[in-house]
Amino acid sequence: MAQRSLRENFVEAGEEQFHILGYNRAGVKAIADAAHAPKGSFYNHFESKEALAVVALERYGRTRRIDRLLDTSVDPLQRLRDHFLFLRDENLGYGFRRGCLVGGLTVEAADASETVRQAAGESFARWRAAIASAVADAQRAGLVPHTCDADTLARFILNAWEGTLIATRVERSARPYEVFFTVVFDTVLR
Amino acid sequence: MAQRSLRENFVEAGEEQFHILGYNRAGVKAIADAAHAPKGSFYNHFESKEALAVVALERYGRTRRIDRLLDTSVDPLQRLRDHFLFLRDENLGYGFRRGCLVGGLTVEAADASETVRQAAGESFARWRAAIASAVADAQRAGLVPHTCDADTLARFILNAWEGTLIATRVERSARPYEVFFTVVFDTVLR
Repeated sequence: MAQRSLRENFVEAGEEQFHILGYNRAGVKAIADAAHAPKGSFYNHFESKEALAVVALERYGRTRRIDRLLDTSVDPLQRLRDHFLFLRDENLGYGFRRGCLVGGLTVEAADASETVRQAAGESFARWRAAIASAVADAQRAGLVPHTCDADTLARFILNAWEGTLIATRVERSARPYEVFFTVVFDTVLR
Repeated sequence: MAQRSLRENFVEAGEEQFHILGYNRAGVKAIADAAHAPKGSFYNHFESKEALAVVALERYGRTRRIDRLLDTSVDPLQRLRDHFLFLRDENLGYGFRRGCLVGGLTVEAADASETVRQAAGESFARWRAAIASAVADAQRAGLVPHTCDADTLARFILNAWEGTLIATRVERSARPYEVFFTVVFDTVLR
């Protein structure tokens, strides 16, 4: 097995620390400690914490199982449901701590850092396009009406998901997930 | 006119700094500077930054025009629309910077501070109850079907709103608002 590079350690540690502490509380020192590396070596790999955030967002995006939303061998509504069930189960595993890294970095850093804002915007855009693809497939199959276009519905569903994660975090309860699945699949996509 | 107390200055400055810098970046020193007060005097009024956050959330809640959601002299769907139009216009005035203070404090501090988590939870609960009241009025008037109960719809709409603010912040565009109004009023409440 190839040895993990120090750079990869920094990216993984950054993602984890941004999740646990938040972007602003997670300093380069804490990230280097979590990567078992001296602080000085951080700057051999990344120009700044912002530069690390961009790569951490890409890494996080690759763990969202976006590709499965595009798998046309599965019923499109089932694809959408499976996607959000996967994300829900991941969050349940953290005991309602943590939220979405893309939403979290937006809230904490988008106003102050153009770099973070753009990287978060690209993450959301990729995610939204994959949701829209499944919604469009459902519309073509006659499972979802064409009242709203697929992009509008995808944007709305993704925003509702981001807010749902905030609600579960504040309530430490699965009730917001139940609300999400009920309203999205019984009303929004009906 | 009664003179504003120093305590009030701290609360207003805290709300503003939490909005602009975020909870974790807004230190007691920055808040005292914004309140034109010496840092030491902060602790004559508040035990901690967390204690200030609780009062700042209450103050913020009073500016959400929650009471108008309960004004039965106005058509219930119009009340709901006016509520979110007011919040949208407020955010447009900030040029898509800032988000919701309750959601922001949740993302930044709910995992680390039980005090902040509970205060944010109470803010959301009051807000949700007022939205649910307008939704229930709309259902009684036959304007919204009873497919989902009013509490479920109110929770969902509030979560969708929180996510919409994240999207406007990352995109610096009003498109997420258009999506919110279209899907909520043409689909969710239909």
